[in-house]
Amino acid sequence: MKIEDVGEFGLIERIKRILGEETIGDDTAPLKLGETTLLLTTDALNEGVHFLSSFPPEAVGWKAVSVNVSDIVASGGLPEVLLVSLNLPPKTELSYVERLYEGMKRACKFYNCRIVGGNIAKLERISISLFALGKTERFVPRSGAKPGETLFVSGTLGDSRAGLELLLMKKESYEPFELALIERHLRPTARIDYARHVSKYASASTDVSDGLLSDALHISERSSVRININTKNLPISRELQLFCKKYKKDPVEYALLGGEDYQLLFTHKRENWNPYLDMTPIGEVEEGKGVFVDGKPASEEGWRHF
Amino acid sequence: MKIEDVGEFGLIERIKRILGEETIGDDTAPLKLGETTLLLTTDALNEGVHFLSSFPPEAVGWKAVSVNVSDIVASGGLPEVLLVSLNLPPKTELSYVERLYEGMKRACKFYNCRIVGGNIAKLERISISLFALGKTERFVPRSGAKPGETLFVSGTLGDSRAGLELLLMKKESYEPFELALIERHLRPTARIDYARHVSKYASASTDVSDGLLSDALHISERSSVRININTKNLPISRELQLFCKKYKKDPVEYALLGGEDYQLLFTHKRENWNPYLDMTPIGEVEEGKGVFVDGKPASEEGWRHF
Repeated sequence: MKIEDVGEFGLIERIKRILGEETIGDDTAPLKLGETTLLLTTDALNEGVHFLSSFPPEAVGWKAVSVNVSDIVASGGLPEVLLVSLNLPPKTELSYVERLYEGMKRACKFYNCRIVGGNIAKLERISISLFALGKTERFVPRSGAKPGETLFVSGTLGDSRAGLELLLMKKESYEPFELALIERHLRPTARIDYARHVSKYASASTDVSDGLLSDALHISERSSVRININTKNLPISRELQLFCKKYKKDPVEYALLGGEDYQLLFTHKRENWNPYLDMTPIGEVEEGKGVFVDGKPASEEGWRHF
Repeated sequence: MKIEDVGEFGLIERIKRILGEETIGDDTAPLKLGETTLLLTTDALNEGVHFLSSFPPEAVGWKAVSVNVSDIVASGGLPEVLLVSLNLPPKTELSYVERLYEGMKRACKFYNCRIVGGNIAKLERISISLFALGKTERFVPRSGAKPGETLFVSGTLGDSRAGLELLLMKKESYEPFELALIERHLRPTARIDYARHVSKYASASTDVSDGLLSDALHISERSSVRININTKNLPISRELQLFCKKYKKDPVEYALLGGEDYQLLFTHKRENWNPYLDMTPIGEVEEGKGVFVDGKPASEEGWRHF
């Protein structure tokens, strides 16, 4: 049997069984150290899989930092330090690597963290694994959602996927709203502005990296609850609306399946809704299991038209 | 200009300039947290570069953990937790990955640490980046060597290189001493038994991963001292002696340049020599700069006959 037969999550289940670590499966691994809870995470960007060699290296560097910081924020923390494991072909242009690090440095400045070390090794394709260490006052897992709570999401959904599709069209020129969507794919921003809110109020939390349906399913499974999503409440940006109108697409599909938005998806009591944050109540937590969209059980495949 | 034109260390110098982190260049990055000093490191094993697909996956897993633990021990610490960033082709056999994790788990048990998380992503070749977090009572850098001190090394040198050459011969059968050398290449052991000694006495320390000359040069450069190595004192195993006799090789060359032995190279006063550890005084620290072998300035190229 091959990896592709069991899929990423099937493989993770088998690894959990070997290692006997029940905690594997959250956005970060918490580590108690005296009064402090450290949060540890790693995420990789691979050439040809997560980015193309034609993408600006500053953007790749920015995104590599952001996706790791996003995991830490989703667990209710803020990043402190990062290490970079950079694997690349010896024929890579030096300026490419310098621009990559410029992008990582800029992101670190933005998120108020720093790169303290790393490793460089040869490989046929560029593969960048980042490791991030953060701190939190309270670790928020994916497993704490309780019936009666509301499901919230930060920002807007689906923009990154639309941006990627626009990039792949390789048009000679783009309209301003198209450039905005492309930016959201190339340079996503981890929602550090939510760290305090999540650590203070959220019972369960994750970031939207795989796509809303898939990430909501992680919360549902690990919390043993049913999650209802109401599509009429999904936050769609003006840019995504324009995109869907121009290219005859369904914005709900982009919001449900898009992925790589690096918004936060979390649950808590409705009364803890903070109107000063751009958070939207998109659903409810109930007794039961599975993710339901407008009352119907949602299999990802059922929605997958991409 | 390409990466291969400036080399690994040229690239690291440029990255240090971009990030403005003077600490980059030690085996680990120390992070003060209250009373505790955390040690952070990352190291990668890439298929076709650091291991071949024909190597037993348990050994690759064992080695991936060991090379990271070795960095932590070299800084005077002991490992606590690890994260695994695993990149691999979807056509990889599931059993290969399971055996890889079995090897990592076995190593973690041996070193008394655990894997608490990770990430899995697609890539054309297998690339395993591990991230390790350890603790120490005192961080030992590469930069503290002082004139008058003695240079010590743990264990024996050159075995791993001989083991690799034997592996690449693909012989139908091997003699027992040959199998022992192969084992030392496939399953090196990080010297956790030295953690206390290094953190208590060493002024400078690193592990022998690139090769004795190269790693001694790191201490010499960062400590701004001259290091003399006396070849008559180099610890050569009985197995390497047999190997060199059989294949007409010079054991000194293997000891000076071999690499991947994951022994510890450290400096302190001669009187702190602990006769209960398998440490050997192989040289002296003096005022000046550079690494000298038997009184002659040693350029790595001058010795490089591999």
